[in-house]
Amino acid sequence: MNTHHTHVPPAAVRWVGETDGYLELLDQTRLPTELVQVPCREVAQVWEAIKTLRVRGAPAIGIAAAYGVVLSQREGPSRERALAAADYLATSRPTAVNLFWALDRMRSVVHAHAEVDTLPPRLLREAAQIHEEDRRMCRAIGRHGAALLGDSAVVITHCNAGGLATSEYGTALSVLFTCQDQGKSVRVFVDETRPLWQGARLTAWELQQRGIAATLICDAMAAHVMQTHHVDAVIVGADRITARGDVANKIGTYSLAIAARHHGVPFYVAAPSSTFDMALREGTHIPIEQRDASEIAQPFGHAIAPAGIDVYNPAFDVTPAELITALITERGIITPVSEQEIRRVVDA
Amino acid sequence: MNTHHTHVPPAAVRWVGETDGYLELLDQTRLPTELVQVPCREVAQVWEAIKTLRVRGAPAIGIAAAYGVVLSQREGPSRERALAAADYLATSRPTAVNLFWALDRMRSVVHAHAEVDTLPPRLLREAAQIHEEDRRMCRAIGRHGAALLGDSAVVITHCNAGGLATSEYGTALSVLFTCQDQGKSVRVFVDETRPLWQGARLTAWELQQRGIAATLICDAMAAHVMQTHHVDAVIVGADRITARGDVANKIGTYSLAIAARHHGVPFYVAAPSSTFDMALREGTHIPIEQRDASEIAQPFGHAIAPAGIDVYNPAFDVTPAELITALITERGIITPVSEQEIRRVVDA
Repeated sequence: MNTHHTHVPPAAVRWVGETDGYLELLDQTRLPTELVQVPCREVAQVWEAIKTLRVRGAPAIGIAAAYGVVLSQREGPSRERALAAADYLATSRPTAVNLFWALDRMRSVVHAHAEVDTLPPRLLREAAQIHEEDRRMCRAIGRHGAALLGDSAVVITHCNAGGLATSEYGTALSVLFTCQDQGKSVRVFVDETRPLWQGARLTAWELQQRGIAATLICDAMAAHVMQTHHVDAVIVGADRITARGDVANKIGTYSLAIAARHHGVPFYVAAPSSTFDMALREGTHIPIEQRDASEIAQPFGHAIAPAGIDVYNPAFDVTPAELITALITERGIITPVSEQEIRRVVDA
Repeated sequence: MNTHHTHVPPAAVRWVGETDGYLELLDQTRLPTELVQVPCREVAQVWEAIKTLRVRGAPAIGIAAAYGVVLSQREGPSRERALAAADYLATSRPTAVNLFWALDRMRSVVHAHAEVDTLPPRLLREAAQIHEEDRRMCRAIGRHGAALLGDSAVVITHCNAGGLATSEYGTALSVLFTCQDQGKSVRVFVDETRPLWQGARLTAWELQQRGIAATLICDAMAAHVMQTHHVDAVIVGADRITARGDVANKIGTYSLAIAARHHGVPFYVAAPSSTFDMALREGTHIPIEQRDASEIAQPFGHAIAPAGIDVYNPAFDVTPAELITALITERGIITPVSEQEIRRVVDA
């Protein structure tokens, strides 16, 4: 049993009220210094929140987008507005496959029901269902993943694959929260995750809130930590996983995977089965979002580089299956990481 | 011949005047947004400038410290004050072996000359000699290193091993400046180098000043760059190199070396022979300076992590000889990197 003092942080995504209600997002760009909840009553606000990373993390984006489609019905039931909202929201982030998956489920509701008057409650029910399924998936990921760690584990993680990225427990962090619930001792080195510091701002905050020992490091320190400390595992989330097990995740994940392999440290990727894009085989075919130079060159508006310098700012990288010890899904552990094993567990 | 438009940046370290003169440092903590030259007339100012990284880079620290000993004579010739200054300056940075080496040369001047009245000019001559030797060493490193690169080279570098870290051309960057002088095409991906951004602030600035194509990246993007672009080499500097060829350099170097090995990209370390500490065999014995948590958790005073978070901030890491393709010194190229080859080239 968990005997630590823990505090459950506010939800990243929450629907308030019935079909005439609104979506409340915890503005993740303001954490950890400010706790700001943003009410969204229009589809465009949800699009903006996803685009500017107020809500981020593949599952949370999917849930927010699903509720975003519900918002399209506030002016009255409309199949056209629901489908237009789904199309529009799909343009907010190019890499997150959960976004497309969630929006496809919302489109299916529109296509399956001829009667337009009952569309709003049906859409809300579907979005709430996606939300609840994600909650259960996160718990299942945590249970499967916790079995991979011993009674005392030192872990490195990158970016934020915690409750803020999902509905409750997260994916990578669910493994750690579940270990804590089981009374295991967990210590986490948290990559700050440049350029947007999701590790420092969000993961360090979530771990601190739940009373898990966390140590913040710069991304390029992780290899040094593996060289000088005992590290039991690296655990990260995923934005998209191909049929052969190549993983697109926050930039820096690939570098960490290479370092883990070099040191013989197991490298785990925790993600729900909705993250798998079985239509893509090779990770090299995943489109990589390029983001603005200012994220790197002007942190907090402070110029760290000379004016006019060229900047390369890919949001994601691709870690090939060969570097991944196991994939942790709500349906079980996939190891070795191969198309055959993935189809056996995910496509069953 | 170099046909690019280039601009020679101001010197990192400059002595102004005779024995009653002063040391002028280019404040590297203010670059690239402000060009501030700091006059130092007291030993304590030099100590502070080294400690707070106003002057940084192993050779530049050694040169500044040597001139710092000269400043001890401004109140009049004194063997005791010279030796006390050397002892004091040695406490400013624990890792930089050039610092101890330069201070030992200054101490030798004190011990070799019984006559105290001529001590100030002798000390100034020795410091200027260290300075001039470094200038020539940097040029020689550049010539040897340039032979390792072809007519068109794409290179990744980390931190700043340029003119700002030395007397003129630098070590790692001297290789690139020399390629440019020889009419070769050079393109550089510059690691920003968290936590203090020496790559973004200093290397990007130096390359831009000299008209070399530079692209700024976050440190954890380097592996992704190697995966998605053709990269000919990684070139970095060194703070200390052991007898077997283990290299202590800015934190993040080790991570980069592992990524280079994984991609079959040659990994070069450029450093003068004064960087070698032949009394140390194993890199694991090099003391690693631990720096303040605020450098990571509060960039520009802006909290990126929750208050009270634990932070690990090692200033250096150690790259084992096995990951290094060649060491580039002013005496020639050392490859393979082994104690035997090091003794043959450096100890000759």
